[in-house]
Amino acid sequence: MEKYEKDGPVSYALGTQLVFTLLSERPELATKVYISPKQVRDETYAKLIALATEKKVPLIENNEKIFHALSGKDNVMTLAEFKKSLQILPKEGIHVVLVNPSNMGNLGTIIRSAAAFNVAGLAIITPAADIYDPKTIRSSMGAFFHVPFHLYASFADYQKEMGERAYYPFMLKASALVNETALQKPCSLIFGNEATGLPDSYLKVGMPLKIPQSSLVDSLNLDNAVSIALYAASI
Amino acid sequence: MEKYEKDGPVSYALGTQLVFTLLSERPELATKVYISPKQVRDETYAKLIALATEKKVPLIENNEKIFHALSGKDNVMTLAEFKKSLQILPKEGIHVVLVNPSNMGNLGTIIRSAAAFNVAGLAIITPAADIYDPKTIRSSMGAFFHVPFHLYASFADYQKEMGERAYYPFMLKASALVNETALQKPCSLIFGNEATGLPDSYLKVGMPLKIPQSSLVDSLNLDNAVSIALYAASI
Repeated sequence: MEKYEKDGPVSYALGTQLVFTLLSERPELATKVYISPKQVRDETYAKLIALATEKKVPLIENNEKIFHALSGKDNVMTLAEFKKSLQILPKEGIHVVLVNPSNMGNLGTIIRSAAAFNVAGLAIITPAADIYDPKTIRSSMGAFFHVPFHLYASFADYQKEMGERAYYPFMLKASALVNETALQKPCSLIFGNEATGLPDSYLKVGMPLKIPQSSLVDSLNLDNAVSIALYAASI
Repeated sequence: MEKYEKDGPVSYALGTQLVFTLLSERPELATKVYISPKQVRDETYAKLIALATEKKVPLIENNEKIFHALSGKDNVMTLAEFKKSLQILPKEGIHVVLVNPSNMGNLGTIIRSAAAFNVAGLAIITPAADIYDPKTIRSSMGAFFHVPFHLYASFADYQKEMGERAYYPFMLKASALVNETALQKPCSLIFGNEATGLPDSYLKVGMPLKIPQSSLVDSLNLDNAVSIALYAASI
């Protein structure tokens, strides 16, 4: 039975909307489109067939097992296999840098917010939650195919590749407030792990910032903090 | 076997941190504290016993079944039962109003952000995800016991109770941008359901606002949108 493998070369876009986004935005990555035998043969189905044919992606309509293996509780009728692929991040614009993020749902939501704020690139410092996991992709609501991303073994590797730009680590120990700081561009907004945040060593990286917040909670949820920072950098 | 009931009079705080927060912030609601027979009898345990005793909350140390029934996959060693209770929302300050939110995880995260930005009250228009569900409470990371909330059968009921204040429905169809608007206080930041947003009728309520975003995604995740709006209203 086919199933998603973290160390394998392919992943899967689950659901009609994601398959359409894959075929429209990154057709060069798509290797197979599966349509469940249970899928109603309606107008959406016809459009999907037409698009897959136009993009020369093979269509498979008689493999029901793969839907059981991949879609879990969700009632998915369409899915696509695609090649995992990293992109070179542009030196311009705003980057989001996630250092050791551990939650796939957060990662998907962050990709969604990154697309909403036209982020130029997403850098993930490993070890990290699997950005290619179908659950991450699904929680990105299609944004996965819009935001260039790359994995790095260390923050030093990322910084070496990017060179001169403004680096803003978001840390509770920072003394500067994001709302009182005029953010330079290009810049990197840097966030730590959900449970532990960034290590103190990041206090020496660029200009550490914090989001103003009460003492009633330890911190904001990671995806909420990233979204606020992106908003602050965009206005 | 005891388990959480949506229509019952009590709910449960799962985990040591939440139990401490309940006993410190809302001891009048706490009815029982359960400590698992497996809990190590360490310093934290001693503090918990002392606090429960001080607050006159009965301690139960020999009921292992309730941990299986309530804690699911999480390895919880301490929990507390507490009375469900609504609070009267203050007329001052910032309110978050959620119209028919459907996701318990989002609700918990929104409560966490509401506490981070010192929100004076959270109004939930039913039908809605269960704010008392132990999963909601747990995802609020303790903020559940810091943010006053109330349930309303309709937005009209809420508005009638609150009277004169600034109402800001967040809608994709709004023409005013939140970052170009000086928000008045007291105010209500109003958000619709995760999938459907607010109905068009809210275009006639107060001053509809939108968060600037690209066309690459349909919308932001609900808790991210709420967090951005709270940040915008706080700076």
